[in-house]
Amino acid sequence: MKKILVLHGPNINLTGIREPDTYGRMTLEDINQYILGRAHQLGLECDIFQSNHEGALIDKIHEALNGYDGIVINAGAYTHYSYAIRDAISSVKKPCVEVHMSNIHAREPFRHESVIAPVCVGQICGFGWRSYLLGVEAVEALL
Amino acid sequence: MKKILVLHGPNINLTGIREPDTYGRMTLEDINQYILGRAHQLGLECDIFQSNHEGALIDKIHEALNGYDGIVINAGAYTHYSYAIRDAISSVKKPCVEVHMSNIHAREPFRHESVIAPVCVGQICGFGWRSYLLGVEAVEALL
Amino acid sequence: MKKILVLHGPNINLTGIREPDTYGRMTLEDINQYILGRAHQLGLECDIFQSNHEGALIDKIHEALNGYDGIVINAGAYTHYSYAIRDAISSVKKPCVEVHMSNIHAREPFRHESVIAPVCVGQICGFGWRSYLLGVEAVEALL
Amino acid sequence: MKKILVLHGPNINLTGIREPDTYGRMTLEDINQYILGRAHQLGLECDIFQSNHEGALIDKIHEALNGYDGIVINAGAYTHYSYAIRDAISSVKKPCVEVHMSNIHAREPFRHESVIAPVCVGQICGFGWRSYLLGVEAVEALL
Amino acid sequence: MKKILVLHGPNINLTGIREPDTYGRMTLEDINQYILGRAHQLGLECDIFQSNHEGALIDKIHEALNGYDGIVINAGAYTHYSYAIRDAISSVKKPCVEVHMSNIHAREPFRHESVIAPVCVGQICGFGWRSYLLGVEAVEALL
Amino acid sequence: MKKILVLHGPNINLTGIREPDTYGRMTLEDINQYILGRAHQLGLECDIFQSNHEGALIDKIHEALNGYDGIVINAGAYTHYSYAIRDAISSVKKPCVEVHMSNIHAREPFRHESVIAPVCVGQICGFGWRSYLLGVEAVEALL
Amino acid sequence: MKKILVLHGPNINLTGIREPDTYGRMTLEDINQYILGRAHQLGLECDIFQSNHEGALIDKIHEALNGYDGIVINAGAYTHYSYAIRDAISSVKKPCVEVHMSNIHAREPFRHESVIAPVCVGQICGFGWRSYLLGVEAVEALL
Amino acid sequence: MKKILVLHGPNINLTGIREPDTYGRMTLEDINQYILGRAHQLGLECDIFQSNHEGALIDKIHEALNGYDGIVINAGAYTHYSYAIRDAISSVKKPCVEVHMSNIHAREPFRHESVIAPVCVGQICGFGWRSYLLGVEAVEALL
Amino acid sequence: MKKILVLHGPNINLTGIREPDTYGRMTLEDINQYILGRAHQLGLECDIFQSNHEGALIDKIHEALNGYDGIVINAGAYTHYSYAIRDAISSVKKPCVEVHMSNIHAREPFRHESVIAPVCVGQICGFGWRSYLLGVEAVEALL
Amino acid sequence: MKKILVLHGPNINLTGIREPDTYGRMTLEDINQYILGRAHQLGLECDIFQSNHEGALIDKIHEALNGYDGIVINAGAYTHYSYAIRDAISSVKKPCVEVHMSNIHAREPFRHESVIAPVCVGQICGFGWRSYLLGVEAVEALL
Amino acid sequence: MKKILVLHGPNINLTGIREPDTYGRMTLEDINQYILGRAHQLGLECDIFQSNHEGALIDKIHEALNGYDGIVINAGAYTHYSYAIRDAISSVKKPCVEVHMSNIHAREPFRHESVIAPVCVGQICGFGWRSYLLGVEAVEALL
Amino acid sequence: MKKILVLHGPNINLTGIREPDTYGRMTLEDINQYILGRAHQLGLECDIFQSNHEGALIDKIHEALNGYDGIVINAGAYTHYSYAIRDAISSVKKPCVEVHMSNIHAREPFRHESVIAPVCVGQICGFGWRSYLLGVEAVEALL
Repeated sequence: MKKILVLHGPNINLTGIREPDTYGRMTLEDINQYILGRAHQLGLECDIFQSNHEGALIDKIHEALNGYDGIVINAGAYTHYSYAIRDAISSVKKPCVEVHMSNIHAREPFRHESVIAPVCVGQICGFGWRSYLLGVEAVEALL
Repeated sequence: MKKILVLHGPNINLTGIREPDTYGRMTLEDINQYILGRAHQLGLECDIFQSNHEGALIDKIHEALNGYDGIVINAGAYTHYSYAIRDAISSVKKPCVEVHMSNIHAREPFRHESVIAPVCVGQICGFGWRSYLLGVEAVEALL
Repeated sequence: MKKILVLHGPNINLTGIREPDTYGRMTLEDINQYILGRAHQLGLECDIFQSNHEGALIDKIHEALNGYDGIVINAGAYTHYSYAIRDAISSVKKPCVEVHMSNIHAREPFRHESVIAPVCVGQICGFGWRSYLLGVEAVEALL
Repeated sequence: MKKILVLHGPNINLTGIREPDTYGRMTLEDINQYILGRAHQLGLECDIFQSNHEGALIDKIHEALNGYDGIVINAGAYTHYSYAIRDAISSVKKPCVEVHMSNIHAREPFRHESVIAPVCVGQICGFGWRSYLLGVEAVEALL
Repeated sequence: MKKILVLHGPNINLTGIREPDTYGRMTLEDINQYILGRAHQLGLECDIFQSNHEGALIDKIHEALNGYDGIVINAGAYTHYSYAIRDAISSVKKPCVEVHMSNIHAREPFRHESVIAPVCVGQICGFGWRSYLLGVEAVEALL
Repeated sequence: MKKILVLHGPNINLTGIREPDTYGRMTLEDINQYILGRAHQLGLECDIFQSNHEGALIDKIHEALNGYDGIVINAGAYTHYSYAIRDAISSVKKPCVEVHMSNIHAREPFRHESVIAPVCVGQICGFGWRSYLLGVEAVEALL
Repeated sequence: MKKILVLHGPNINLTGIREPDTYGRMTLEDINQYILGRAHQLGLECDIFQSNHEGALIDKIHEALNGYDGIVINAGAYTHYSYAIRDAISSVKKPCVEVHMSNIHAREPFRHESVIAPVCVGQICGFGWRSYLLGVEAVEALL
Repeated sequence: MKKILVLHGPNINLTGIREPDTYGRMTLEDINQYILGRAHQLGLECDIFQSNHEGALIDKIHEALNGYDGIVINAGAYTHYSYAIRDAISSVKKPCVEVHMSNIHAREPFRHESVIAPVCVGQICGFGWRSYLLGVEAVEALL
Repeated sequence: MKKILVLHGPNINLTGIREPDTYGRMTLEDINQYILGRAHQLGLECDIFQSNHEGALIDKIHEALNGYDGIVINAGAYTHYSYAIRDAISSVKKPCVEVHMSNIHAREPFRHESVIAPVCVGQICGFGWRSYLLGVEAVEALL
Repeated sequence: MKKILVLHGPNINLTGIREPDTYGRMTLEDINQYILGRAHQLGLECDIFQSNHEGALIDKIHEALNGYDGIVINAGAYTHYSYAIRDAISSVKKPCVEVHMSNIHAREPFRHESVIAPVCVGQICGFGWRSYLLGVEAVEALL
Repeated sequence: MKKILVLHGPNINLTGIREPDTYGRMTLEDINQYILGRAHQLGLECDIFQSNHEGALIDKIHEALNGYDGIVINAGAYTHYSYAIRDAISSVKKPCVEVHMSNIHAREPFRHESVIAPVCVGQICGFGWRSYLLGVEAVEALL
Repeated sequence: MKKILVLHGPNINLTGIREPDTYGRMTLEDINQYILGRAHQLGLECDIFQSNHEGALIDKIHEALNGYDGIVINAGAYTHYSYAIRDAISSVKKPCVEVHMSNIHAREPFRHESVIAPVCVGQICGFGWRSYLLGVEAVEALL
């Protein structure tokens, strides 16, 4: 059975509280239930991890070397400057799908650029919590 | 029954012939069958249109004013400079999902910027012909 | 009797429907009646043409070589990137007045720059449908 | 009866003397007569003021708070850097029309950008002294 | 007894009238009373001067050479381009505190850059009329 | 009784040791005593926290959701690139005042830009350890 | 026998009329006779096509997939922004030579950049109608 | 007898007081005596004018239309942004020599660019008060 | 006996696994043995530390205040954006040598710029694991 | 009989040795024989000169003042920064054709810009050693 | 007796032949006679050297270490990119005056920037051959 | 026995005289003795060459085709703009190590970029004359 890792970056623990007009009112706990449900439907094992610490996210990505077949990552604001996360993804050589709840290309200019995009298979953004479900489907198709 | 419009922009008629390393070997005809199949599964009517003419794509988008509930568009290279297509999408005020077969954020710099993104709900790119299927699912969820 | 050509670029056929807060609620048909009326008052013959196709606009501009004494053009979004329309205007060597319904210099940065401005006599923008009437007056004064 | 203020910025007192190939040979006095004539035709009271002093122009714009219903301004070279004049126009909250005798978008690049444009209703440029008359008509239509 | 100079730049005379959502509803007269009160509390003599004229502000700053021990300046829009005011502050070699009522770093990009900042001791912005009081306290601590 | 959080970012633990010409010779311990004293004077409860870890600062800011009425933050070098801290401040929706001991606008260009400024109420910089006291006063006025 | 396609982009139909100081006084018809003559000399079949429509040029380039061994293209102003034509050339994988009658590197800055150059074998510009003849020779040598 | 105008821009009245390491210790009065002496040697009448007001400098330049044969100008910080002074110099069509006491090209980047240079005959900078004398000689040679 | 600190930044724990074409196949453990060997040869005590956490690296650098005479640092991707690490190095005022296994100036543009370089004595890059040995020799010569 | 000068810039003496994948395997000697042959066919005298020294190339270009009717130049890497060679070509006022063996517009960005292009009649690039032959033909047509 | 070195850079040997509208019709020989005459008047020994070779100019500047008290240099086009000449001037630590016959700030943008200016005392440009004489006077005043 | 070439670029002949604060007081002769000594220790033959002439450096690099096994180069200021030296290094296909005595990344911005870096194996800078010795060791390890 294939196993995937879903990563939530900084501030995503506040989802449902933080800027609901932009991100919706579901909490991260709610979203995680949907993610697990979809993974289950698709026959995938799935671990979920959230951290506000760049280094903790990197450490977790390194676990994919031996522990996971694919990654779905919403790197939050680290998306826009963490070349260290980019190098981590690049190092583990597992298919990685980048997701965002909001359409980053329709927001402030600094959010248009993703420094992790060049080492990911693809990007899905703008569909709220459903972006994660589409991301799980996409990584499943890649395995 | 909801009805959606799937638009293919310039050069996509050559898919399967053109740069298969980047876009895969399926022809546009094959892809269209998959798109129609997924739309059918989701209970959507679906029209598909391809053109190399910017004006023809704009004319077609205008038809969405009265004829369609949502749009999935792969605007090809027009993605990067057609402010006219952007204005067309903005005018018809129907949910529009931007898709690309390749991960445009991992290719040449001029392909990173999408001028239509600010008027679309979200963007899906990098999953080959499956990007369209994810796009159809996404627009379905929005209706 | 002098004869002028009034050109409407992409998406202007949706005027009155599209973004009425920005452009007002009059339809293109209504505006055209005002334009013809003002031209008549000033003793000018006047043809009006709209297209969403860059090439069709260029073809029409070429007709001004022998058929028109002056041009009033609202090139819509092509204003910001169509060097081909710029070359067309430059080729026919007839006085051309650039008009816009909205104040392009007060909107998104990409709308500030007009690539056709350097080959036009002048620019009028920001006065809604009245921009056209001011444009007709301006071209009349130039003839 | 509505009352408008027409403002001439720096160096415009030399009009007719300065660079006649660009600005024509009419003096400012001649132009002012035309402006007053057109205002009279349209049933408007009209005051005209010229200064080479940025501060004096700002002081005058402030008078519009209580004294004028609209403004027509040719801010000359201050157009391109006077954020102080911009703030003045923004403060008095009266409709303001920006005019230029030459087509600023067809001259040196530094003249393409107008820092006052974002707080004006619209812009008219390129028609010599007639730009002022079109400006008076435009402000009349706004009142 | 130490003596300070408080300078208000262009358009600040309209405070309380101009854009109250941004700057609050207190008039400049009200603010000046608060400033004088705080200076008095801190045992400082205090002169206040407002002008819309860049040159007049420079002339006044020059008086600090012999007449004042410190300066609090809100240079308004001149903040963003008046290298002449910068040179004036630099010339008189008295501690100068830059204040702004709004948070200039949270507004339009052109307001982020202060050309006078490099010759001032520090900057206080975003606290409405209270920015002046904090500025008076800051300059008092420096004397 | 209102309660505020004062945050010190990376390297500020070395204050008094690190570059005393720029930051003065008082240690962080000394500064904290002044901060607590001023908060006490103003009738505020006050917690102080320092960390070199971006993630730890974010975690602490999240505590403000329920635990604090306002924030004073000197984000150190994270000021210039931590969009993650910016999102954290934005999420908790409590008034936040940005302070810096040095005048960041008078130092190297990379220090001029604050990425957290757009989500803070205001900025105070350049007054050494007194910047914190002015920051506490400012946040007190906002509560 | 080898067969080549010579493409003329927008406004080239006006050659000989348009800006003769820059492009010379020969008409497109005259130039086409020279092109056909040179192709004949070199033992090549040759079709020539002109259009002002970007989409029509793309459609024609697609015909090269099965119908032509090489292409000579003067894309006119589309040279500078048509990433769609670039993708078309790239898709058909036939040797393509870019020609321009004027020396685009000695004209306005926007004409220096050719977005189609990276997918062409080489570029010839500056020799008036003779640029086409050199282009035909160059493509012949490549076949 | 030829007559020249020597203009001193903002803050130059403080010369000898302001930043003597950069500009030397002679006062403006001393420098003016040298200027008059050199003009006398060369058989020139010479008027000298200083102002901190941009508008006052413009008004004075306008006097050159009928009153002076040439101008020597040190526009101080206005050199770097006063397009209004540039237009004034351009309007009066008298030979104008730009001088600076310091070598502006060896100081801060914003001082490298002179917006008045394109309308002056030449520039002399870096020789302290002697820059003026070289400027007077240069303008004499031009007359 | 002198004592140095060798720091490995993010993802370097994967060396030998990650992108061996770029970095070689030796593991970090192997490299550390070489480093310790060379330090021993040169009569230096040597501690080695690796972390993916920016804050942990800063904490460790702070230990150099009292615990080390010099530093050799490969900051990995933090090299390109961690102004916080830069400030840490600058604060401890011990000679610091920057090393990279790959030639960062021959890779992607974002890797050309090192934000820590201005506070380091020198930089050595491009020699694989030998870069560390050269770095140890260099720091030894500085002590 | 007309006489032309063919110039080879830096490193071209290594042609056939240097990067054969980019430039082909013919040596410079071989190429020169082809050039002389084509010149002979066209009835032209032809001198050929190669140097790695910018100054030597300038000296040689100066000989064209009296000694040559036209120039064909491949300035190698000097193409991209030698404004001195540009001035030399401009000074001698003889028709000059710029050639490159590779398509400089399809290589690294620094090779896209030619600083000599604005003073040359035209540019031919991308056809290997045949670029020289096309260059000789082009200059012949210009004489 | 003081001794100065006057250096002419690339293409200046063609002065009087090359672009006389820009540089005048006097030959370099004529100009040199004027330079020697003025140096003689001022009691200076003077050597003059011209070369098109960057290296030869550097070698000559090095002679100033022991042989000259000051330098007047017109570095021609090397002015705009020769950081090597800049370093040479900086190394010999003798006062150096930069001169240009044309007003480089009124020509093409690439000529506005002088990379040698930061190591020269001052700059004189725009006065044709008289720029040299003013340069000799300036360097005399500095000795 | 392996043989290497050590190249010194422009102005390095003045080392020990030129800017000793930056480069130290040892002369080039002294440094060369150290280089030869270290090469001898490592069992390498070593030739050393200095020139201020870009072309002479290129000629010498070409000798490495047959005469040397590796290169150590300090290209001085040519580092920052000599694409011709870059092409020379690239052509000879021998391992080349770039060295600088000062830390170029800690000096003026124009010195941060090395145009030769992309064709060198690695870069060593900031260790004074010892940079050369580290460079010799590095090239030895590569052979």
